[in-house]
This record gives sequence, C-alpha cells and structure tokens, in this order.
Amino acid sequence: MTMTTATPNTATPNTATWNDPAVREGYALIAQRGPFVYGLTNYIAANLSANVLLAAGAGPAIGAASDWVTTFPAGASAVWINTASLMSSGEESLRAVARTAFEAGTPWVLDPVAVGAGAVEYDNFVRSLLEFRPAAIRGNASELIALAGGQATGKGVETTVDSSAAVAVVAEFAAKAGAVVAVSGPVDYISDGSRTVEVPGGDVRLTRVTGAGCALGALTAASIFAVGDAFQGAVVSHAAYAVAAERAGVRTRGTGSFAVALVDELSLLNEDA
Amino acid sequence: MTMTTATPNTATPNTATWNDPAVREGYALIAQRGPFVYGLTNYIAANLSANVLLAAGAGPAIGAASDWVTTFPAGASAVWINTASLMSSGEESLRAVARTAFEAGTPWVLDPVAVGAGAVEYDNFVRSLLEFRPAAIRGNASELIALAGGQATGKGVETTVDSSAAVAVVAEFAAKAGAVVAVSGPVDYISDGSRTVEVPGGDVRLTRVTGAGCALGALTAASIFAVGDAFQGAVVSHAAYAVAAERAGVRTRGTGSFAVALVDELSLLNEDA
Amino acid sequence: MTMTTATPNTATPNTATWNDPAVREGYALIAQRGPFVYGLTNYIAANLSANVLLAAGAGPAIGAASDWVTTFPAGASAVWINTASLMSSGEESLRAVARTAFEAGTPWVLDPVAVGAGAVEYDNFVRSLLEFRPAAIRGNASELIALAGGQATGKGVETTVDSSAAVAVVAEFAAKAGAVVAVSGPVDYISDGSRTVEVPGGDVRLTRVTGAGCALGALTAASIFAVGDAFQGAVVSHAAYAVAAERAGVRTRGTGSFAVALVDELSLLNEDA
Repeated sequence: MTMTTATPNTATPNTATWNDPAVREGYALIAQRGPFVYGLTNYIAANLSANVLLAAGAGPAIGAASDWVTTFPAGASAVWINTASLMSSGEESLRAVARTAFEAGTPWVLDPVAVGAGAVEYDNFVRSLLEFRPAAIRGNASELIALAGGQATGKGVETTVDSSAAVAVVAEFAAKAGAVVAVSGPVDYISDGSRTVEVPGGDVRLTRVTGAGCALGALTAASIFAVGDAFQGAVVSHAAYAVAAERAGVRTRGTGSFAVALVDELSLLNEDA
Repeated sequence: MTMTTATPNTATPNTATWNDPAVREGYALIAQRGPFVYGLTNYIAANLSANVLLAAGAGPAIGAASDWVTTFPAGASAVWINTASLMSSGEESLRAVARTAFEAGTPWVLDPVAVGAGAVEYDNFVRSLLEFRPAAIRGNASELIALAGGQATGKGVETTVDSSAAVAVVAEFAAKAGAVVAVSGPVDYISDGSRTVEVPGGDVRLTRVTGAGCALGALTAASIFAVGDAFQGAVVSHAAYAVAAERAGVRTRGTGSFAVALVDELSLLNEDA
Repeated sequence: MTMTTATPNTATPNTATWNDPAVREGYALIAQRGPFVYGLTNYIAANLSANVLLAAGAGPAIGAASDWVTTFPAGASAVWINTASLMSSGEESLRAVARTAFEAGTPWVLDPVAVGAGAVEYDNFVRSLLEFRPAAIRGNASELIALAGGQATGKGVETTVDSSAAVAVVAEFAAKAGAVVAVSGPVDYISDGSRTVEVPGGDVRLTRVTGAGCALGALTAASIFAVGDAFQGAVVSHAAYAVAAERAGVRTRGTGSFAVALVDELSLLNEDA
C-alpha cells in the first residue's frame, strides 16, 4: 500500500488518504480488536479523547487514579501520554505510566502539548520522557520543532508555524528519537526517519475545537495497536481523522456542531467498508 | 406501583419503565424539589454528569475544592462518589465526602468505576468506602461482580460480562452491603436484596459515550433524594435514562450526536407528564 | 457609544446589546487580535471555556501544569481564574497565577464560583486573591453578594437570588475592589463603581448548561484584552454571550443541543459585521 513505500527524506512525500484501502482496513481493525487504551491527558481534552476512542471502537481509560499508573499500562493494548496531564497528576505519575508501558512493551504515544511555549521546567520534563521510548510522538509544528531542539515557540497550546515548516525537522527528529513523528496542520506529515507520508484534508475548524489534536494522539495509540505498526498506525489515525473532519465540515457551520459531528463521523467511518 | 412489589430473588424480576406513572412522577419530583447534589467524579465524566443533573432539574456541584469536601456533603440533598475521582483528588478527600455524608445522613451513591480491572490498591480503597454505607451502588456487571468479591475482571472501565450475569450477585450483594445495587447493561437490574426490578430499553450507544454510566450515578443520587427512597430512586433514574436513550437513539446516528440528544431528552422528559 | 456613558449608581442603568456597533466591533477585535488567554478553571467547565474562547477567535491554555503558572500569565494577553480550580490545583498555584499576572500587568478576571455556599476556608481563600487586583470579577448574584461581604448564600454553584438583587451591591463592591464587577442573571449588570450598564437577553437555559457562567469569565478576559478596557470588555463579552444564547435558544429545545448551539453562535457572530 502507498503508505508503506519508503521515501527518501528529500523527495516529495507520498500521500495517504481514506481512499487507500489499507487505511480503511486499518481503521476497521480498531473496532474489530477493541483495544483497551489507557492514557493520561489534560482534563480539557479528556472527554473528547475518550469519545473519539469509543467512536472508533476502542475502550479507553484515562487518569492517574491510585495504582492505575503502574498496572493499566502493562495490561493495556496501547497507551498515550499528553504531558499537560501534569495539571492534575504529578511528574512521578507520568513517569510511572511511561516506564510501565516501556517495560511491558506496550506501545505508547507522546503528545508534548505546549512544549516550547516558554515554560522551561515543563519543557525539560517533557523531554525527559523520551528515555522511555514512545512508539510515536504527535504534536503541532511549534511543539515538534521545539521538542526536536529548534527555536519555534508556541503561543500556549497553539502553533505559530505551519506544519510544512516542520517537515524537514520531523524526519530528522524521528530518526534521532527512534520514534514515528507526526505533525498536525493543514497537511499532516508522518515520518519514521526513512519514510515520510503526507496526509491532506481535514478542516480548519479542527484548530478551533479544544482537544482535537490531543484526541488524535489517543486515536493514534489505538490504531498503532490495531495495525501492529507505529508508522502505519499513525497514518491510519491521521487519515481517518482528516476524512471525518471533512465530512463533519460539510454538514456543519459553527464550531460546536463541528466537534459533535467529528465524533459522529468517526463512529460511522466503518460503514464505508 | 409495580416497582415496589417485593419479588423473591429466584423469581423473574418485575419490570419498570417510563410507562409506569410512578416513574414519571418520581422523575418530575427532581425538578420540583431542585436538589443540590454534590459529587466527586473523574474529570472525563464531570461535564456530562453535571449536565445530566441540570437537565433533570437538579443543581450540581462537583469537586474536592478546599473544604467543600467537609461542608457540601452535609448541606447537600444527595451525594455521589465516582471512585475514579482519585485521578485528581486524594483518598482523604473521597473519604471525607463519604464520611461527612454518612454522618449527616445525606444519602450517597457509590460508583466503583473500573474496580476489578487489575489495580489492587485502587480496588481495596474502593471497598473501604463501603463502611460509610452508601444508599446505592451502581456500576457495570464486571465492576459489581468484582466489588461483591467475585472474579470477573473488567477491561479498564469496560465490562467484560453482560448485566444478566450479575443478577444473582446483585441481590446477594445488596443484602450483604445493606445498599441498593444497580447494574447497568442491555437490561439494568436493581435490587435491595429482597426485591429486584429490571429496567429494559436504553440504546447500545450508551456504551460508546464516555461517562454515560457515571452520569447515571449522579442522576441516581438526585432521584433518591427526590423520591425519598433509595430503591425507588434508582428505579426512577434508570428508567428515565433508558427512555431518554431510546428517544435519543431514534433521532441520531453517530455517537457524538447521540450524547447531545441524551441530555436533550432528559431535559424534555417532564413534558410528557 | 452607549456603554461608556457614566451613570450615577442610583439612576437606571444604561443598556448594552449586540445591536450597539461598539459591542460588535469589540467582539470582532478578539478574532482580529487572537489573544493568548491563560486560565485556571475547574475541570467541569474547562472544555466549554476553551471552546468558547476558540469560537471567539482567542487561543486558550488552561491548567496548572508545572511552571505554566509562573510563566504563562506573564506571556498571556489576559488571564482568568475560576477558584473552583482548587479541585485539581493547590492554593499556591492559583496564587502564583494571580501574582504573576498582577506583577506582569496582565489583566485578569476572577470568577469566585460557589463562594458563600458554606465552605468557609474556601471563601477566605477566594477573598485573599483580591489583593492581586483582578481587572474584573464575575459571578452570579449569590456569589457577588457573598464576596462583597453580604449574607446571601448559594446552593453549591447555583444562585439563590436574582441578579437584580445584586445591582446595588455590585456598584459599591466595584468601587471598593477597584475592579469591574459583572453579575450574571436574567439581566446582567456590569459596573466599575461609577458606571453601571445592564445587558438584557440571553436564555434561561444558560443556567442549565454546566460551566456556561465559567466560560463567560474566560471570554471576558479575552475581550478585556481585545478592547483594551476592563469595563467595555466585560460589556462586550456579556452582550455577545446574550445574543449568542438567544440565537441558540431559537433553534434548539433541549439543553444539550442548546450548549452546542451556544458555541456555534459565538463562532458565527462576526459574520454579522
């Protein structure tokens, strides 16, 4: 399938969309396998993230309640950590989840939301989680450039640069971190260091729904488990999200309805197959 | 009314639905009495739980902010504790709320979400709250079987067994715990140990909306106060939820719209009367 | 423009609505300036608050994650603190945000949710934040009367008195606190001590959507920055909210759809201009 073709970093990336049978099949595998996906995320995005996972057919659990942090990541199919979960959990909780997932061999996704926005301690903590080897890292362009060591600075959780500015950085950072790296934007770019795929589409209102990016990180964890591969899993989740956003965009105007329709469309995507 | 008829444990349970005048009247009492319902819950379900309470006509407050935990449970009409609130509050906060409610005579509902899913410390803490004598305990089949001392294990917050598998356990556990026990599933079962009522209906998408079960726990607290009885209160909340879900299911397809419509229908139920 | 006309406290307040060109222009400035608005709020209201800010064209970040509390308030355009954020953050975090905003000259909005409802430690903490000189304080009538030193007591987060009962208190309290004070209700009243404006309209369902008031506090922070004035900013946010609620009310019946439509309408308001 297109999305697995190796592409030199310097060449034009291949494109993946919902029209690729492999993308549809990968997304359908989430519902077929019904993975238990455990995550720590911020409380702004938690509800949407869980509903996105449920829409796709995964079973989510979220939060650092008691010894969930040392037990659930081992039993889970996949894990995600959105580092803004520090707003309700201590650093030791995030570290416990990352370590437990790493030691158990559970693939996990790192979402370094707001890294590079000016909070130095926070940024250092986010970077320290890389030692637990996430299978994938997703964020917007500002975040990924900052995490890769560049100077781009975000405005809180918003990016100040376009995803295309991050393409070169993404492939290099993926190779260095040994992880799949996915940058969200008008076009998404996904790289494992040797291959880069672009995912067009989506809807500009994705940037006006809080937690839409965070929820994509959760979905990426589910699809990595479902397809059994971090790179293809990230392509599947991003392409599914893009088409769901497009369809939601067609039938809504305001941003409130768009958010609801996004979940709707994700829950109905498998009817295409 | 049907729902108060005593039924031996071994007999077929009586059925309660929205068609029962006593159910409608009980639900209407929530709006008429406008109870102040205080709860601790997880931040994934908090928003939906509050909106469900507001839809029914109750006034919710949620969270362990400062001395709310030692003052609000005494002044409240009813209380609920979803033990996954440990993700943002310490054990002492949950215990303070349970103890304060118990000592003040405020009826409270225990929602032991994810108990039995493999986190032993968490499970032990959840069980320790039983000493504060909840008026009702609600959960899915895996959770209630686990809390009752059985071996069923959940997959995070999801159940792995059907509610019908929990019927026998529910009545026995209700008698032992001295609480009304309600198990949610394709059919809900509610027992006080001597009587068991089944509530059919609902919609399978309730399992695909995060926090739908948790919000039912909150609504149960409100209706226990409104009707002045834990058993009948639980029957009222479950039957109202079931019909609201059915109506929401008729007019929506995706899971995002379904969640919105569920709240809508709860807010409009009293127009039936 | 009408909303800046000085009105003696004893006179009938002037009225501001969406029909005032200055209100429309002020609201449009939010999207034009795209302020970064940082806040601490409770996790029940966090999602709606962020979506309201995004709908208006602001870029929100929420939460006390690591050193966000000492860095973001200095870099932000505006800040809001909903004191129920104590449910997931310590008092020192709220104080750090207030102090940092104060010292950096970043205007900030205080939302003293549930003050006066019976939790004395909580109430005292809320009052202690006044030393950091919020630009504006918003709440319902019970909260503002309690914060001003009166005896009105809320029922959890609900008011027990009408906003009109707070008018006299509001102007006096504004003068004393050196802040703009805005009380939400069937009619909203906004005062800086010498001028009082009333904002009619809205929809009664605003009281049945959790966090609707909290989100208005966030929007007020954004509009204070956008228009460069605390009084006019509060008038703009309240008048925009009122018309968005009216429009949402026309096209929905249930409270779930109403909440979604409220965000929709806020995201479409600038199409009027």
